[in-house]
Amino acid sequence: MKRWNGWGDESVDMHLAPTAKALLAELVGEGEPQQDVSLEATIARVPTSRLPAHPLVDRDPEVRLRHAAGQSFPDWVHVRSGSLARFPDGVALPTTADEVRSLLRYADEVGARVIPYGGGTSVVGHLTTPAGEAPVLTIATTRLNTLTHFDETNRLASFGAGVTGPDLEAALRARGFTLGHYPQSFEYSTLGGWVAARSSGQQSLGFGRIEDMFAGGTLHTPAGDLVTPPLPASAAGPDLRQMVLGSEGRMGILSEATVRVRALPDSERFHAVFFPDWAHGEQAVRAISQEGFPLSMMRLSNALETRTNLALAGKERLIKGLQQYLELRGVGEEGCMLILGFTGSRELVKLSRRKALSICKSYRGVHMYRMLGNAWRKNRFRTPYVRNGLWTMGFGVDTLETCVSWSRVGQAMHDIEHALRTALEPEGERTHVFTHLSHFYSTGSSIYTTYLFRLAPTGEETLRRWHKLKSTASEAIVKHGGTISHQHGVGEDHRPYLVHEKTPLGIEALKANCRFFDPNGMMNPGKLV
Amino acid sequence: MKRWNGWGDESVDMHLAPTAKALLAELVGEGEPQQDVSLEATIARVPTSRLPAHPLVDRDPEVRLRHAAGQSFPDWVHVRSGSLARFPDGVALPTTADEVRSLLRYADEVGARVIPYGGGTSVVGHLTTPAGEAPVLTIATTRLNTLTHFDETNRLASFGAGVTGPDLEAALRARGFTLGHYPQSFEYSTLGGWVAARSSGQQSLGFGRIEDMFAGGTLHTPAGDLVTPPLPASAAGPDLRQMVLGSEGRMGILSEATVRVRALPDSERFHAVFFPDWAHGEQAVRAISQEGFPLSMMRLSNALETRTNLALAGKERLIKGLQQYLELRGVGEEGCMLILGFTGSRELVKLSRRKALSICKSYRGVHMYRMLGNAWRKNRFRTPYVRNGLWTMGFGVDTLETCVSWSRVGQAMHDIEHALRTALEPEGERTHVFTHLSHFYSTGSSIYTTYLFRLAPTGEETLRRWHKLKSTASEAIVKHGGTISHQHGVGEDHRPYLVHEKTPLGIEALKANCRFFDPNGMMNPGKLV
Repeated sequence: MKRWNGWGDESVDMHLAPTAKALLAELVGEGEPQQDVSLEATIARVPTSRLPAHPLVDRDPEVRLRHAAGQSFPDWVHVRSGSLARFPDGVALPTTADEVRSLLRYADEVGARVIPYGGGTSVVGHLTTPAGEAPVLTIATTRLNTLTHFDETNRLASFGAGVTGPDLEAALRARGFTLGHYPQSFEYSTLGGWVAARSSGQQSLGFGRIEDMFAGGTLHTPAGDLVTPPLPASAAGPDLRQMVLGSEGRMGILSEATVRVRALPDSERFHAVFFPDWAHGEQAVRAISQEGFPLSMMRLSNALETRTNLALAGKERLIKGLQQYLELRGVGEEGCMLILGFTGSRELVKLSRRKALSICKSYRGVHMYRMLGNAWRKNRFRTPYVRNGLWTMGFGVDTLETCVSWSRVGQAMHDIEHALRTALEPEGERTHVFTHLSHFYSTGSSIYTTYLFRLAPTGEETLRRWHKLKSTASEAIVKHGGTISHQHGVGEDHRPYLVHEKTPLGIEALKANCRFFDPNGMMNPGKLV
Repeated sequence: MKRWNGWGDESVDMHLAPTAKALLAELVGEGEPQQDVSLEATIARVPTSRLPAHPLVDRDPEVRLRHAAGQSFPDWVHVRSGSLARFPDGVALPTTADEVRSLLRYADEVGARVIPYGGGTSVVGHLTTPAGEAPVLTIATTRLNTLTHFDETNRLASFGAGVTGPDLEAALRARGFTLGHYPQSFEYSTLGGWVAARSSGQQSLGFGRIEDMFAGGTLHTPAGDLVTPPLPASAAGPDLRQMVLGSEGRMGILSEATVRVRALPDSERFHAVFFPDWAHGEQAVRAISQEGFPLSMMRLSNALETRTNLALAGKERLIKGLQQYLELRGVGEEGCMLILGFTGSRELVKLSRRKALSICKSYRGVHMYRMLGNAWRKNRFRTPYVRNGLWTMGFGVDTLETCVSWSRVGQAMHDIEHALRTALEPEGERTHVFTHLSHFYSTGSSIYTTYLFRLAPTGEETLRRWHKLKSTASEAIVKHGGTISHQHGVGEDHRPYLVHEKTPLGIEALKANCRFFDPNGMMNPGKLV
């Protein structure tokens, strides 16, 4: 069963290597093991529902609790420490578009606010129950989860918006096709959630972002259904799909989406290359991104991420051997690991691999062949599980991400890391910070930073630490003209920083658009704008 | 000098082959040579300006006439026959963003309507002076036409929005870069116009549509400046660039735009292949589009376009030899010509060419090597000039285009052609109609149809014929769920059909968005929505 207060399935644990505990203590100090509140105690705190009965609305306290939060750091603190203050008054799991429509009418009639819920994996506070007198209805797309239409000729597949990554890929692969969208939340996140939060998958370099895949769908809004047809392209005015993409439940709920699919590739290969330092690695990935031959992914870890990952992998003897070999080849402490993925026809994979590895070599990259690439592939969706174990040991871990032009990458990474590393210094706490680049464009790159720090004795205090870290890093991001989110969306946590990208006039335009579709302001208030 | 009543520069004539006249007579009947009104007579008809004086506004009748129409068929009829009824009351050619802002303020103060003007190449009525009491100010971006910033590291270039295709490419090529955007109007159309009308160039298969190239810019709206930053990607809410793209002057005027540029390719090759019939050709281009290796263009002509182009080329002996050879290889009367373009590194061009030609072969395609491909390249921007000569000979020619899913391509093409071919039958007039596919996606293709018919003795009657042709073909397009425009925009001519793609709710949303940026409705009224 899905964990009620952590990531993933209860039966899956990602155990850290025995040496990891010592390493963490060395990095940020001993962790204080946490005492989490129990499910039962939390259920007991769920107040009586303010919603009148409706045949589709479940007012059971446990169901409401299980839909009350996402996976943001504040969500974790509230759920684990027992400070979760607000719960939706009811949860509906519609099975048809008609049921979605009738739920929106019901919500309007009873003056409720509506939170659209996909896989519950938001890391930026999309699911927070708004404060106030109005009752809150969560509409989960969980049961809108089947393939409704498959069209091989036109390479289109329509799904209920609540389909998860594995179910979507299974349905396509059975037919010889794939979408190729693999966010780290793949196991639980949904197609509707990807669209609503402008998600980007680990292989966006080859398959594109969700914007490129989402061909059209049906968004149920208080003002009516907005249906966007799956046209290959159009010059007929502004693209309404682009209003739906990133709308974060503020305009309505997507019940169905059509995506552009591809034939399963003949071949897929992941390779690892080590660079002697960051500068060489960054120049190599920029050159590859601008060269114009197809890859499906790259991930360049900075030196600290490279060392941390190798240290936490646990295979001490193997890693030691690897490091000795790299040392001989000129890659030492400052070494940075790059994973490269090639996906497509055998010939194209061969050509791209040869070209990419040759560019790496010209930047002093040492090719380590496929072992570490395969290890990355194997663990690509498991990293979030590590968070569970770390928390229990007394460590909080969070990530943040942006996207900037190439010339800003190095300095922005430095400033974001510096902000995080020093934020808690005044109170005598250390933060372990490392970064990778994992989504690439000819004009720039995403920056994905992980930070780890000690949990405080109380949830309140932990949250204060996190706010300090998050706000100082967010300020570093906007200072560099970076987007406040490259792949996670805005939600509550990024909302104060959105104006830097959109400008005040742009924010007002987005608000006006929300008002058009939702004149009474019932849809997911407090998120996005 | 630019023609005031036709396409292109006065010094350039595209002469039709001597045999062409006979062929046209055979196809649709003898043309009635037209007597066009003179420039002087038309200038004399320009009424006194209703605009008060402003240092940036030119109220000279000839200048106003020269900005009074675009290149749509109705525009041609009105300009050539002397029935142009409305002229802007003044034309401004600002040289700075500040001047644009001050012109918008002036227009607001004097209650004027504003028409943004780029290269004057709109073929759908973007430039029509609105009827009514309010004076009309045309703001042309002509003098906002320089490269303002070039950033090699980040592959970004910023230009004044009025830069034309050749000036833009010249500035980039001097630095070893290219944009790769080549609409047929390339010679005159502008970057701002491409963005405002969601343009697509002949090599969109390799370089993408303008949506992919436009990184950001400054749109001056009555509500203030909307500045979109040139981020590589963002998940922070709906993408405001996508509101600007396709806004057709209804929200504001773009003064500057930043585009994503690429290094000049090492290699570029154009090849021709002939298929024995349409079905084989269509299957081949679909297979190539869905295969996933890079090409920069394809253009598949149907049998009638193939025969028409070969007949009009004039090189009788050469063409006869070609046809005899094709006959021997199994390609006869129903033969369809495909031009394929490959652009990029030598190795990638080589691989893609081999793969594409091998797919063509499997669909019975006969490879004719590069001669016809090179001929296409040479004449790629010259076709619009043919319109001048045809008109003088008494023939009207127009094109229309859509984009549909693959499974609709054949039937949609058939129905569009049938609609055009039979529309004037009741009045004893014939229409010569042919089609090509020229923009390809994994999920479908554009359809580009040319139709030629006899001009009537009066402009009014010619316009009636055209309306009949245009409306019957547009109905065939929307019946197939096609977009009313794949690359030309909406303007006045496509406006009645937009609702089929956008839905009534979508149209109202777009109107609400225009109202937000332009509360008094001064920006290009009567266009788009």
